[in-house]
Amino acid sequence: MVDSPRIAIDAMGGDTGLAVMLAGAEAAYRQDGALRFLLVGDEAAIREALTRHAELAEASEILHAPDRIAGEDKPSQAIRRAKTTSMGLAIDAVKTGRAGAAVSAGNTGALMAMAKLALRTIKGIDRPALAALLPTLGNNDVVMLDLGANTDCDARNLIQFAVMGAAYARSALELAQPRVALLNIGTEELKGTDEVRDAAAMLRQADYLPLQFTGFIEGDRMSRGDVDVIVCDGFSGNVALKTIEGTARFVADLLRRAFTSSLRSKIGFLISRPATELLRHHLDPNNHNGAIFLGLNGLVVKSHGSANANGVANAIRLAARLVRDDLTRRISEDLANFDTHKGPEAVTA
Amino acid sequence: MVDSPRIAIDAMGGDTGLAVMLAGAEAAYRQDGALRFLLVGDEAAIREALTRHAELAEASEILHAPDRIAGEDKPSQAIRRAKTTSMGLAIDAVKTGRAGAAVSAGNTGALMAMAKLALRTIKGIDRPALAALLPTLGNNDVVMLDLGANTDCDARNLIQFAVMGAAYARSALELAQPRVALLNIGTEELKGTDEVRDAAAMLRQADYLPLQFTGFIEGDRMSRGDVDVIVCDGFSGNVALKTIEGTARFVADLLRRAFTSSLRSKIGFLISRPATELLRHHLDPNNHNGAIFLGLNGLVVKSHGSANANGVANAIRLAARLVRDDLTRRISEDLANFDTHKGPEAVTA
Repeated sequence: MVDSPRIAIDAMGGDTGLAVMLAGAEAAYRQDGALRFLLVGDEAAIREALTRHAELAEASEILHAPDRIAGEDKPSQAIRRAKTTSMGLAIDAVKTGRAGAAVSAGNTGALMAMAKLALRTIKGIDRPALAALLPTLGNNDVVMLDLGANTDCDARNLIQFAVMGAAYARSALELAQPRVALLNIGTEELKGTDEVRDAAAMLRQADYLPLQFTGFIEGDRMSRGDVDVIVCDGFSGNVALKTIEGTARFVADLLRRAFTSSLRSKIGFLISRPATELLRHHLDPNNHNGAIFLGLNGLVVKSHGSANANGVANAIRLAARLVRDDLTRRISEDLANFDTHKGPEAVTA
Repeated sequence: MVDSPRIAIDAMGGDTGLAVMLAGAEAAYRQDGALRFLLVGDEAAIREALTRHAELAEASEILHAPDRIAGEDKPSQAIRRAKTTSMGLAIDAVKTGRAGAAVSAGNTGALMAMAKLALRTIKGIDRPALAALLPTLGNNDVVMLDLGANTDCDARNLIQFAVMGAAYARSALELAQPRVALLNIGTEELKGTDEVRDAAAMLRQADYLPLQFTGFIEGDRMSRGDVDVIVCDGFSGNVALKTIEGTARFVADLLRRAFTSSLRSKIGFLISRPATELLRHHLDPNNHNGAIFLGLNGLVVKSHGSANANGVANAIRLAARLVRDDLTRRISEDLANFDTHKGPEAVTA
């Protein structure tokens, strides 16, 4: 257990940039004084900004990076600049052990490509996956993966995602036996693609893993809180995630129209404002910020490009928790456990 | 143009059964006195129920079916009972020309299998697709397909879906040049699966078709009203559709919790009730009821299993409009047009 995790912050990534990243780091530090930071980016700019964040300055070191990855940079271009960019050097700090985890709000494709190249996948994992926490009606968030790292997935990939997602849920959600379901277009055994059916058949027998496989889940049940981990290929996972975002915004827009459609409804809205603020808080993506690349030899957390300081602080807290829980080791142990029973050819490379 | 379309009603299908199907047919008839009905099911039961629907009785004939398809019947079992069930005989009435379209609220898998077997696919279509209309923030609904008929789709399937979806949008939404987009996990040309990229490359060149190809669309933009037709494989389409349903219900549930959390918020809610009723009306699936199997030699509309009479009436109105517009012929003509330019091997069988 690492008591004082040091988090490498890609200070130059994201739409909002340095000011929000530092404000987020300071907010996280105020809540957890054991945190330490490695602020990676333009040294002069960081030093100047830190004059407005005296508390954070005490807990931080600066690592100078002369260059930064832009939102439109292609992954193939980005990886050639790993040694000079704030994103590349933040990941490198994880590789060398100078930091326990890296947090970046930059370009997802570039971050994934650089992290994979620098940190390599855990033994037994064919492909890393992008996982996030989504709100539910239950007491807990739900872990969902893959969210776009892998457009085509076979049964073996899906099973590895299930193992990684369950390890993540044990750490992030503090559950001993997370309930894991495969996303499908029906709940009967015959529904869906070959890949999904084959993965389900294998997971049904894997009763020695510290997870409870509950079968298939459909898109309309994902927010009910019935399961803790939802496993899918990166194409349908990305479609589902963005559809949730789009639909929540759609309903909110309709609601806004409805509430401003007459004087009477405006008055009603003003009176019930504390209630709608509660709703807004629950749906605010900043309160669920921080997607993680699972399956690498090191922790890299992706903060949303447009997250505010509160969102960045949540991503940093998530990173710190996963460092303390040694998530990478947990995943390796679960995979080794799976191998012992099924033989390496069944699930892992 | 068919002035008085006759619609075959599977009177025994769905969760709600005969009473709702007949009430829905009567509601549709009140709005459109030119409609005629073929009520397919248990003759004694229908005759008895019609005593409470005198208006509908005037415009209806009864076709006796001794058996019915249940919700749990497998498609493979259902097709063996095509000659005795209300669902099978309603489809058969379309095949023989006794009705212009069939409407059923029964088991989707069984309906699709029976319709495909009885009506066969249009020349030039490899696989029929399930299409529905979804609400948007714009002035029009958006057509989405495929919604679950085909879990794996190649580029050719996707292009055929685009052509059928555009023909459907021209009829159902009265648009001359529907804007068609492919669902993907990014908007750049390099994003997504091979199938989606290949389909996009072909659609970009198909400028002689009566549609406007607008490229890729992501899940978070589907409800914005920027496009008229969204094309996808049946797996991600079904995931997206159900995710929309689930998220809308999730937000509504949170809203209900918020509004009942205090006396103050309850009062605010009561005052703004007309506004929230407007929202409820906009999101009510009954107002968007009626999915259609595109690509068959005949029109079959699927009403939601739990639709109310208003929902059934909407499905019937949709069926009548598509009969009047001769949608099947329109799709065939568009496919022939596509063939002329690209050669049959490019897109059609």
